[in-house]
Amino acid sequence: MNDDLISAQKAEILLIEQKAEQFVVSEKMFPKGGTVIVGVSGGADSTALLHFLKNHAEKWNLSLIAAHVNHGLRGESADHDEAFVKECCQKWAIPCRVLHEDVAALSKKRKEGLEACGRYVRYTFFKALAKENGAVAIATAHTASDQAETVLMHLCRGAGAKGLSGISPVHEGIVRPLLCLTRKEIEVYCNGYHLSYCEDETNWDLDFSRNKIRRQVIPVLKTLNPKVETAVSGAAFRLREDDNCLFEMAKSALEQAAHGLGWETSSLMKQPRPVRLRALFLAAKKNGAGELSADHLLNLDLLLLQGGKITLTLGLHAEVQQGILFFGDPKKQRFAIPLSFPETILPDGRRLLVRKISQKELKNDSKFHNLFFFNLLNYATISKNTVVRTQLEGDRFRPAGRGISKPLRRMMNEAHIPPYLRENSILLEREGEILWAEGLGASESARPGVDRQNAMIIIKENGL
Amino acid sequence: MNDDLISAQKAEILLIEQKAEQFVVSEKMFPKGGTVIVGVSGGADSTALLHFLKNHAEKWNLSLIAAHVNHGLRGESADHDEAFVKECCQKWAIPCRVLHEDVAALSKKRKEGLEACGRYVRYTFFKALAKENGAVAIATAHTASDQAETVLMHLCRGAGAKGLSGISPVHEGIVRPLLCLTRKEIEVYCNGYHLSYCEDETNWDLDFSRNKIRRQVIPVLKTLNPKVETAVSGAAFRLREDDNCLFEMAKSALEQAAHGLGWETSSLMKQPRPVRLRALFLAAKKNGAGELSADHLLNLDLLLLQGGKITLTLGLHAEVQQGILFFGDPKKQRFAIPLSFPETILPDGRRLLVRKISQKELKNDSKFHNLFFFNLLNYATISKNTVVRTQLEGDRFRPAGRGISKPLRRMMNEAHIPPYLRENSILLEREGEILWAEGLGASESARPGVDRQNAMIIIKENGL
Repeated sequence: MNDDLISAQKAEILLIEQKAEQFVVSEKMFPKGGTVIVGVSGGADSTALLHFLKNHAEKWNLSLIAAHVNHGLRGESADHDEAFVKECCQKWAIPCRVLHEDVAALSKKRKEGLEACGRYVRYTFFKALAKENGAVAIATAHTASDQAETVLMHLCRGAGAKGLSGISPVHEGIVRPLLCLTRKEIEVYCNGYHLSYCEDETNWDLDFSRNKIRRQVIPVLKTLNPKVETAVSGAAFRLREDDNCLFEMAKSALEQAAHGLGWETSSLMKQPRPVRLRALFLAAKKNGAGELSADHLLNLDLLLLQGGKITLTLGLHAEVQQGILFFGDPKKQRFAIPLSFPETILPDGRRLLVRKISQKELKNDSKFHNLFFFNLLNYATISKNTVVRTQLEGDRFRPAGRGISKPLRRMMNEAHIPPYLRENSILLEREGEILWAEGLGASESARPGVDRQNAMIIIKENGL
Repeated sequence: MNDDLISAQKAEILLIEQKAEQFVVSEKMFPKGGTVIVGVSGGADSTALLHFLKNHAEKWNLSLIAAHVNHGLRGESADHDEAFVKECCQKWAIPCRVLHEDVAALSKKRKEGLEACGRYVRYTFFKALAKENGAVAIATAHTASDQAETVLMHLCRGAGAKGLSGISPVHEGIVRPLLCLTRKEIEVYCNGYHLSYCEDETNWDLDFSRNKIRRQVIPVLKTLNPKVETAVSGAAFRLREDDNCLFEMAKSALEQAAHGLGWETSSLMKQPRPVRLRALFLAAKKNGAGELSADHLLNLDLLLLQGGKITLTLGLHAEVQQGILFFGDPKKQRFAIPLSFPETILPDGRRLLVRKISQKELKNDSKFHNLFFFNLLNYATISKNTVVRTQLEGDRFRPAGRGISKPLRRMMNEAHIPPYLRENSILLEREGEILWAEGLGASESARPGVDRQNAMIIIKENGL
């Protein structure tokens, strides 16, 4: 063999390793070391990953646990992969944990595709192992080639910056040390270190879209740019940074606009649209909307300008009233539950505290006057059989000291309680009578006084 | 023919037209109307564009001029296209201007590809026509299909948000009203209106990369998402907004960091990286760097942190000294030109003004003391044969009133003039003697005084 050839190959492998090392360091994958769960299928990518981490374990203070899932999908071939992974781990003195799961059966039960179900099984297993072993990270063997495929798949679906930024190098405890290397580079690495690996047949079967991209699109793009995978990964990296930056700004914008359970539209509208749309995305998500589509976000944006109400998803609407954007689900928010002492957790996430209050406190502590006025009532009236509930059509209320009885809705109007607060507001009812209403205070019959034992109602928001 | 079919087709065409109308309005393509130059090849896209604009000319207060370029590349076929466009314009009463250009010959002369040369010829022609007719816009027939191809080409090359945002709907006087429609939708439009058009053969010949994307990549992606062109266009639109937003922030960041001809690194480093990299891009561009690559920008970013000097392009380096980033080209900035009165335009873009100053002004106006001190000299010494030049190795200077002569470089050191200002600093020389140096003032022999006529030197920056 030619000596130059050998050293050229060595130099190439060295460069590949350095690239991955720098990537791990710059992405702060293992800042303090610790136990790492390494997902290993036995294919070239994950075998290279395990070998790479083993070689760096001492330097980075890592202790590794390999995790292999036998999906039971490919009979003998799957068993061969499992044996291969076990053997590899034994050779390298790395503990190996294996899960057997009948993914075909489970996917039918879960009513999802084999690929999605397989992913669910793997990550559930990895996360359980991570918890069990107090791991600092789960490492998976995604490559720049996977990244390029993912970006193209998302582009094809019309994603924005978020989707186009593809697979995260570091996200929620999962790290991808090889995301900077192409599949080709990993093959060079494996060959250089004489690593054997299994042909990962599943790659060629299960994910229809990904395989089309891999087998029919990438090869054409490679004729235009042989380094297309690295190029697309680079684009994804830059888009991720852009997107994160704009999301950070959106978070600040949301904090600035916060107003009770809602957000001031005038404040949101001052933001440039990319920031505003992300703020709306986050606001909707906080209210349980899941990941909204671009169209939904544009509709929400229009709502800021025009006011009114739109339905986002089943049971969730967005509404602008009196310059405040808020989200609501009338069905979900209607509830009636027994009052418990000293704390009742409300279905909307708030906590209602009931505290007995002494006559001394009541007399002396004038600084809480306003809070006292609206939140104080006769303890004896609420001590049993009391229900906490949201308003109902036809509720009537007889406020303390006014000698009248009116529909609750009208009283709230007169008290200028904004509609978006009314929807969440609660009341205490006992034997058909409203004893206290949020924002209005005690009723005539639950009227507090210096001559009796009183209770103080305190409502704590859930931080929304 | 079935009536339902007809009305379904009508509804489809109406929707297509509405989409383009809304796009033109929301992108503010013709806010005040006026003359529009419409590039027409005779193909489906540009024929549809001309027809669409003709139908909206009254509503949007447009007067149209069609512009056709016969590239002389396809013999009879090209002549047929030209005849077709002329006929079309005659039928629709639209003035038509035709340019004949031997693009094959010109491309050899300009040493560029046929496609690039053809583009150069077309846009030069359109712009000349626009100028000649006081046009408000040039309209071209780019479609969502072109957009998807462009985005994929840029992605393949590893572009960031800027490249991935593809073709601009509105940019530097060029508007693309059909950028929201796919080629398929335009065919439906043409068929619906019974428009005939030429097969645009050039599309299938010249641009190698684009045609690979069009013929080999898009068809595969369409099997994953039949609306892939619209999806990719949507992604491009959102990325454009993100990118513009971040560039606006970068502009502000640059303004905040401005310090003389350079920028404070401490101020730039406070910015999030996506903003900072764009600020560096703009700063380098202002200094004539052209469009820097992602790698160049990362190097520039590292320079902020580490200090030192890097070469960006031939004859342009970036340097950090004393916490200031600046760009320079030592070769370009060395000059020696005759001083002219009252103004000399310097090769670096600054303007040097010489103004006689009365004894009265000199005596009374103490508020300009500092300016006077450094920028005042004896008018008689500079009135003829004076040269304005940058420093040379070995320059010596004898400052007024100090009775010494020193190397200019050392004097500047002692005066704490930062190196990045020195490089641009100028001096006045007459018959081998330095009479005045920027930042140091007059020499002994050009020393100003109340007993003689003095001149004031004022230097105006070029706004960099």
